[in-house]
This record gives sequence, C-alpha cells and structure tokens, in this order.
Amino acid sequence: MQRRTFLRTSIAAGLVGAGGTALAPRLLDAAPHRRPRGPIRLSSNENPLGISPLARQAIIDQMGDANRYPRGRGELIEALTTKHGMPAETFVIGAGSTEVLKMAVQALAAPSGTLVLAYPTYEDAPWYAGPFDIRQEEVPLLPDGAHDLERMQEAATAAHGTVLVYLCNPNNPTGTLTPSADVDAWIESAPENTYFLVDEAYYDYVRDTRYWSALKWVPDRPNVIVARTFSKVYGMAGIRLGYAITHPETAARVRRLRVRNNANHFAIVAGLASLRDPDFVRQSLDVNERGKAILYRCLDELGLAYVPSHTNFVMHRISGELQAYSRRMREMGIWVGRPFPPMLDHCRLSIGTPAEMEAFAEVLRSFRQEGWV
Amino acid sequence: MQRRTFLRTSIAAGLVGAGGTALAPRLLDAAPHRRPRGPIRLSSNENPLGISPLARQAIIDQMGDANRYPRGRGELIEALTTKHGMPAETFVIGAGSTEVLKMAVQALAAPSGTLVLAYPTYEDAPWYAGPFDIRQEEVPLLPDGAHDLERMQEAATAAHGTVLVYLCNPNNPTGTLTPSADVDAWIESAPENTYFLVDEAYYDYVRDTRYWSALKWVPDRPNVIVARTFSKVYGMAGIRLGYAITHPETAARVRRLRVRNNANHFAIVAGLASLRDPDFVRQSLDVNERGKAILYRCLDELGLAYVPSHTNFVMHRISGELQAYSRRMREMGIWVGRPFPPMLDHCRLSIGTPAEMEAFAEVLRSFRQEGWV
Repeated sequence: MQRRTFLRTSIAAGLVGAGGTALAPRLLDAAPHRRPRGPIRLSSNENPLGISPLARQAIIDQMGDANRYPRGRGELIEALTTKHGMPAETFVIGAGSTEVLKMAVQALAAPSGTLVLAYPTYEDAPWYAGPFDIRQEEVPLLPDGAHDLERMQEAATAAHGTVLVYLCNPNNPTGTLTPSADVDAWIESAPENTYFLVDEAYYDYVRDTRYWSALKWVPDRPNVIVARTFSKVYGMAGIRLGYAITHPETAARVRRLRVRNNANHFAIVAGLASLRDPDFVRQSLDVNERGKAILYRCLDELGLAYVPSHTNFVMHRISGELQAYSRRMREMGIWVGRPFPPMLDHCRLSIGTPAEMEAFAEVLRSFRQEGWV
Repeated sequence: MQRRTFLRTSIAAGLVGAGGTALAPRLLDAAPHRRPRGPIRLSSNENPLGISPLARQAIIDQMGDANRYPRGRGELIEALTTKHGMPAETFVIGAGSTEVLKMAVQALAAPSGTLVLAYPTYEDAPWYAGPFDIRQEEVPLLPDGAHDLERMQEAATAAHGTVLVYLCNPNNPTGTLTPSADVDAWIESAPENTYFLVDEAYYDYVRDTRYWSALKWVPDRPNVIVARTFSKVYGMAGIRLGYAITHPETAARVRRLRVRNNANHFAIVAGLASLRDPDFVRQSLDVNERGKAILYRCLDELGLAYVPSHTNFVMHRISGELQAYSRRMREMGIWVGRPFPPMLDHCRLSIGTPAEMEAFAEVLRSFRQEGWV
C-alpha cells in the first residue's frame, strides 16, 4: 500500500471510529476539487485572500507600461504621506521590507558596527549583516516572548561604535509583542549612535493596547527607522513592496544603499490601488481573526500548547519531531512553517481562510488519532 | 500666444514653407489621438513594443499567486540553462541586471578594492561602489567609442588588492562596441584577483562579427561575470529581471549579496513566458533596425553627426544646448535621453517604433527650421 493511500485510509478509519463524525471522508471528497488550486499553504505568513481586487484590476489596466522603467514612485510616496501623516522625504521604498532591512544594515551597521537582536527573530537582518564585519549580539526572548530589552540594552552599551538594534515587533516567528512603553523608554534614553530598526511587518494585526507604532519618534530622532510591508494585510508578498519611515537625514543614508528601480511597475501600481481599498484590509483582518479562532479551538481541544499570537501566524507545540510532522502535513496537501531554532518542538502555522483552517484542524485531529502529535 | 501654440504654429508654417510636404499638420492631427497614450518615450532604451503577448497572458493567468512569496525561480533557471547551455549553479538572479551589478560590486570590490571602468559608461556600477571604500579608476573611451583596454589594464595592474573591471559591451550611453578578441586577450592574461564584470545588456542587438559574448570564459575562469537583462529585447524593464552567469564559486559569493526574494512573482512568470516566445524577440530586433534606419536617414539629411550604434539607442549631435533641446522636445511630447557627461553636445535617443521615429524625425526637421539644431 502506498504511504499516501495508507495515510488517508487510516485517517478516515480513525475519525469515523472516534465518534462517527465522518469528517475525514468529507476532507477526502474535497481534495480532488482542491487539487487544481494546489496545496493549502500555511507556511509563509501570506494573506490567503490574494491581493485586493482593485490591485488586480490596476495591474491589468497598466500592463501596457510593463516595458517602461518603473515610474509613479512619487505618487506612491504621496499616498503614504497621507496614510502616515509624515513628509515625503521620510520614506524609503524597497522591494519588500526585506530590502529596507538590507539597506538599513548596510547603511548603519556596516562596515564594523554591532547588530543587537533577539533570538529567535526574523532572520533577514542578521543574514544581511553576514558578509560584513558586523558583530552580532543575540539575546534570547523573555519567557513571555517579549524582547529582553534590559539585556539587549546591556549588549548595546557594552558595544563599541555604532549599534543597530533590530526589534521585530510583533516578533516573527513567535507572534509575540514587546510592550511599546518599554521600547519607548529605551529609545528615550539611548545615545545617538544606537539606531533602532523597528520592523512592524505585522503592525496591522495587533489588537492590544500595550502596543503602538514607533513612528512617533521619527520626526525628532534620526536613530529610529520603522519598516513596513505590503506583503501581509495587502497580500502583496509576490509583488515585493515595502518601505522605511525615518528622519530625512537617516532616510538619505539608507536610500543610498537601494537597488535602483527597486520597486517594480506592478508593485507601485498595485500598492497605490491597495492603499485605496480599506475594505480589503478590513476583510483580511476579519478572515485572520476567524481563522485564528478555529486554530485555537482545535489546539485547545487537543491540548497542544501555543503562543497567543498578535499576528497572522501561530507558534504551537507538536509533541513530536518537526521534520516528520511537516512531511506528513505535506503528504496531506498542507504546507506548514519551516524549523525555527531553538523552538524545534513547535511549528509556526500561518493563518489561512476559515475553510483552510477547518481542513487543517481536521488533519491535525487525525494526526492525534495516529499518535503523531 | 502660449509657447506650445506658438511652437506648433511655427513648425507647421516652417514645414509647409520648406517644400509643401504638409508633414506637420499630419503630426498635429495625430497628436490628439496619441495624447491618451502619453508621450513618445525615447529616453530610457526601452522596448517600444511592450512585453511579449505570452508574458502578458502569463501574468493574468497567474495573478492568483501574487499574494505568495515568489516561487518558480528553479524553473526559470532551468529555462536559462537551456538557453545558454550553462549549468544551474552558474546563474545568479537579480531584480534587473542592475541588482547583479550591485551584488558583484559588493561581493568582489568591497570593502576596499578598485573599480576600473570607462568614461562615459553605464552609471550603476560606480554608483553602487560609492558608499564603500572602493577606489574608482575612470579611463576615457577611445575616439571610436571602444574601451581603452590598454589604459584600463595599466590602471588594473597599478592597483593593489582586488580589481573589478566593469566592461559594458556594447557600451551605454555610446552604443559602441569593444572588439571581443581584445577583451579575450586581456582576460586570458589577467591575474586571478582581477575580476571582469561584462555587462551584456545590449548583446542581442549586435550584428557585428567582431563581437561575441564573454560567456566562453565562465566554465574555467572564476574571475569573469557576465550580466544579462530581460529589460531590452524582452521588454521587461518595468518588471525587473536580470541575471549573472559566472563560475559556481563566484556565483555563490555574488548571490550571497542579493535581496531575498529579489525576483518578484510576475518577473519569474513573465520571464519564463518570454523565453518561450522567440518571435517576440525577432520582432523587437526587426522594429529596432527599422526605427534606427529612419533615424539615421533623418540625421544624415540634417548633417547631424552620430555614433553608429550596436544597440537600441543612438548618440547624436544636437548643435546646441542639451537642456533647451530636451525641454523643447518634451514640449512636443517627446522624451529624449538625459545628459551624459562629457558628451553634452550629444543626445542619447532610444529607438521607438517606426511610427514614433517618423514623428521624431518630423519634429527634428522642424527644429532645424527654427535654427535650434
């Protein structure tokens, strides 16, 4: 018997045996319909709704300029100044916020500064520091998943020369937040040569009064850089658009490290259209809340611990080996998150549509039947 | 009388006066029809045909994955291995070939090497070197527009440490080529720590037996990097896709400096479709030849000298001040090239469609009537 057939058969048997709910046959029936659309992708914190219908239409309408070097950056920045109430010269556009992280690391920490960051956190900033002579100080997160600002501050103080503090808030891959009042206190007291790169990729998902943007520091403090992305609530992960907001002085330094023409024609066109579609953002947030509730219910039911999340993904226990778990999920047509050391007894799961989360929950319950989680 | 009205009226009068050809009225009649499509853009060496119809369709068909981080890079590289007969590990993908130039400069010339380059040449490589402690040795082109390889070699030999030689061949902004046998002779005799970044953005346009790609060196010489782009014959300037081909050892070093997810979803999708559309490339080359012939005829007729071009643009004399010329062209709805020091008595004109080149020629003749060129 093929592994796949075996797995499906035993899931079906298991679930029916567990109370005759006959959920698995429904899942199996549904599979052929799902197949042409490919797997359920819960691996990369993407927006399961796609992009805004307005963005889609704008791409089609402006296809005729795809042969021209990108223009419209000024119009995009103008729309961003309206959104954030910050002047145009504070914006630095990137091909995704990852390029903003790269530019900031190269402009502020290279050639021989220190990068202070959490462990675990989003991997791009330290990856960009890798080829340079930049010292990296990793400070483990606190037990509640917040950044250990006290120890990070000690590391920054002990360092010589320029320090770049990378704060992913809320943090990826844990989904946890660091209270903004604590971040503010550090920024308030920090010396000029300590820069704060605050990655707010998941800003829009947060519903917690202890959290606010670090944007308030930008007008007066040239050492604060806020990074934002169009990859999450706007669903534009494939199109590559992000930006920094920082004091004009710092913006000029960071911008100097960009790839020329970094935001492509479709990124600008879709970004502009997305900013005019608040309904899509609301819908994205609503779908995320509903999907997360389905996941929490299933994890609670199975007694699998998880880190309460302020984002569009959840770190949860799997009670087993991540590689095998991930492979088994893939065999069921579901992609889950990659390993994030040191949390190798956890899996990072992105929130899909409610239907996708129901399908996931069903498979997870069947794994429990098999004794796999 | 408004400047615009004045200008049009005097052109019409001038042309009719010059032989009753009544070309200008036709141009003026055509203008309202052209207006919705915007100006005639002959400023940025773009493909006037747009992108391949197959690429256009692929973008529409795969719009549903725009919310996913880009995949399909492997498939794109596979198609490139077929095109070039080089193994997958020799390819480095970039968001345009400009990112390839950036990666190469950072990987090979930073932190403290020497960049040897022509003057004038394409500005991106030296611009990327700017923020680093990289010495730049500019060597003027020879009178025929070829690189002065002898003097460049002297500069490279005199430098300490790693040297990166940037060779844009054919050269932008002059459209001239450097005989490949001469390039080969230097590569053959160069020491290991002299790297050659050969920018072949305009490779496909060349019809000259003295020219061939530097690709032949890649299998054996880790110090040769060839850069190619999808911005020209494939018409994808707005979508940002380019690549390097180099020895796997060098490829790994160069690739390490990329922006993560640098080729966006549409770039990969459109790039793949374009590689399957040789008809579009043929059509692009044909249109370019026809447009260039129209331009040459007009320049010959007006006695305006030009640099015979191996590309999709032509450097020609304007017998006047470039800024005023450029402004007047813009007032007529035509965008021409920016200033390229030291050739400030020349204008770089990109080749548009035959109809666009006819319209340009008509305006240029009218400028002569005005005594402006």
